[in-house]
Amino acid sequence: MVENTSRLAGQVRVVGAGLLGASIGLGLRARGVDVVLADASPANLRLAIDYGAGRRETAADEPVLVVVCVPPDLTASVVAAELAAHPHAVVTDVASVKVAPYEELQASGALLDRYVGSHPLAGRERGGAISGRADLFVGRPWVVCTRPELSRTRVSLVESLILDLGATPVEMNTVAHDAAVALVSHTPQIVSTLMAKRLAGSSDAALALAGQGLRDVTRIAASEPELWVQILGANAPAVVEILRAYRDDLDQVLAALDEPEAPGARRALAEELAAGNSGVTRLPGKHGQEHRFSQVVVMVDDKPGELGRLFTEMGEIGVNLEDLRLEHSPGAQIGLAEIAVLPEAQRRTIDELSSRGWRIAGS
Amino acid sequence: MVENTSRLAGQVRVVGAGLLGASIGLGLRARGVDVVLADASPANLRLAIDYGAGRRETAADEPVLVVVCVPPDLTASVVAAELAAHPHAVVTDVASVKVAPYEELQASGALLDRYVGSHPLAGRERGGAISGRADLFVGRPWVVCTRPELSRTRVSLVESLILDLGATPVEMNTVAHDAAVALVSHTPQIVSTLMAKRLAGSSDAALALAGQGLRDVTRIAASEPELWVQILGANAPAVVEILRAYRDDLDQVLAALDEPEAPGARRALAEELAAGNSGVTRLPGKHGQEHRFSQVVVMVDDKPGELGRLFTEMGEIGVNLEDLRLEHSPGAQIGLAEIAVLPEAQRRTIDELSSRGWRIAGS
Repeated sequence: MVENTSRLAGQVRVVGAGLLGASIGLGLRARGVDVVLADASPANLRLAIDYGAGRRETAADEPVLVVVCVPPDLTASVVAAELAAHPHAVVTDVASVKVAPYEELQASGALLDRYVGSHPLAGRERGGAISGRADLFVGRPWVVCTRPELSRTRVSLVESLILDLGATPVEMNTVAHDAAVALVSHTPQIVSTLMAKRLAGSSDAALALAGQGLRDVTRIAASEPELWVQILGANAPAVVEILRAYRDDLDQVLAALDEPEAPGARRALAEELAAGNSGVTRLPGKHGQEHRFSQVVVMVDDKPGELGRLFTEMGEIGVNLEDLRLEHSPGAQIGLAEIAVLPEAQRRTIDELSSRGWRIAGS
Repeated sequence: MVENTSRLAGQVRVVGAGLLGASIGLGLRARGVDVVLADASPANLRLAIDYGAGRRETAADEPVLVVVCVPPDLTASVVAAELAAHPHAVVTDVASVKVAPYEELQASGALLDRYVGSHPLAGRERGGAISGRADLFVGRPWVVCTRPELSRTRVSLVESLILDLGATPVEMNTVAHDAAVALVSHTPQIVSTLMAKRLAGSSDAALALAGQGLRDVTRIAASEPELWVQILGANAPAVVEILRAYRDDLDQVLAALDEPEAPGARRALAEELAAGNSGVTRLPGKHGQEHRFSQVVVMVDDKPGELGRLFTEMGEIGVNLEDLRLEHSPGAQIGLAEIAVLPEAQRRTIDELSSRGWRIAGS
């Protein structure tokens, strides 16, 4: 029995035992919460229970909070059913679109004073309960869709869930949420998918020249089509607005490339590239951080144990490893470990590793 | 004096002391090659020499190989000048487009029997000699543009350079090369740039929801506009061909999203997403490898030394670390270290790390 360290006083019911539902169950159970799981598929439910994400429901259950973790298309109807079935519970959902389910709920005539929509900005490329992780939400933003008429107590209950799972609550209305995810998630998905589609018919010789740039641009193109059709369909107007501006810029680039020597063509290209530079600097995160540390690039033979040996020796030398990036090309005999250390430790790291036989790049 | 371990017998002249030129100089000097540097900018030249990438030229110099590392627009004229100035040397270049400079050289009437174009698929987001690295090319493909009339000896000389620098020579004709880089490098650049441009005018609140997906899609949008205008301009026809197909698909997606409930709209979206899935699986590399190892995900406090301590303890436990990925959200108190170990070592790694107080995700 895990000691109860939850902010939630009472039982939580999770409907839908996929990646998000199972991860919520695992995270809450780690805090000692009594988690009741439900899923339309008996096989899914059994798997998630075996996996430790919660228990089967009983007639006596009385949840204080219901978390609906079903695909976007089903969200409104499942939320309505849960509101009716549990007349004292607050009901939230985790769908990645918020306007469409809310409008559908309104149209259905459901009483919505106990419904607080939410959306954790977390996920993995692999789905299903088997990919569930108690820490999936740790450090991630989790949007709570507030409405002026919602009672603060009910919003707080959902925020307690979010804090219990290690995420950061971010209050936003449904329209602002859908516009934001159209920008940071849905449009990038389409952009990446259509680039990846170009690779389908290409030659192995061309693909052998691919580097990290192409890999990064196309990584999310591996996402699940069934889920994404629903997400894109449910957030179509917000996505169309951004995608149409993207398409117009693309037409400008195509026009410039059709006649690259025409007056203004190169300037048009330069302006698009510079605008891309400006855009990417707006992303919070790594940019500022990189300057806090100095890099040491170590060449590591591609054989088992070499990386482990490197880190063991880093420990012996007593240098703090602040961050690390591995670069490795398929087929290469050697990988590069880019190690971030405090600037004052850089010289000593290079000297000590060199004296232990490591090859340091650029020194 | 470094012992000469080069395949090249004689002096190498590098023209253009930016990132690629300086990296070539550093790599060759590490093998004991006599490297002569030249650059139109005296300041650039001084910096690269200070940095150890080579020495200043003298009247007595007689290079066996000249490597032209100037921007694409200047490549043909500099290659022609070097062919004339060094009548016994083989001349190569490293421009990332190959058809346009060759056609320009042909049109200029230069004798091209000593010219062997090439292109290393390597680079960094930061340019300049100061970012140069002797190992920049290690494990990367480096295209050599062969032509039926070229003497094998001269092609071999360029391949010796490539092998000396740790790269892998890949023979291709200029047209195949330009089509390949249009696909794996130039089109992704545009796709990424135009996505990043969308971020320029957006709200901080929206950007705070950004995750790794958007970061990956837009990373290369930080590339230098001046260089990329030249690259895209010089490879315009090959890029246009791919980009037009991309734009046509984008129009299909837009049409589907304009009326997401229309018959066939969701099917159209699903087909695009599935085609993206297929495309991304064609990329060589990590996909196969991931299955060879088992993952252990360790939660690491965001404070100095924690990662170092983890790797030290991994070493003490005696488990080989096969690969590693760090996940860290800005502002989060905790990062996730995804460690790859041999499947048979997974249980022991989890047990030993847990008993030392590490929090393991999903266990």
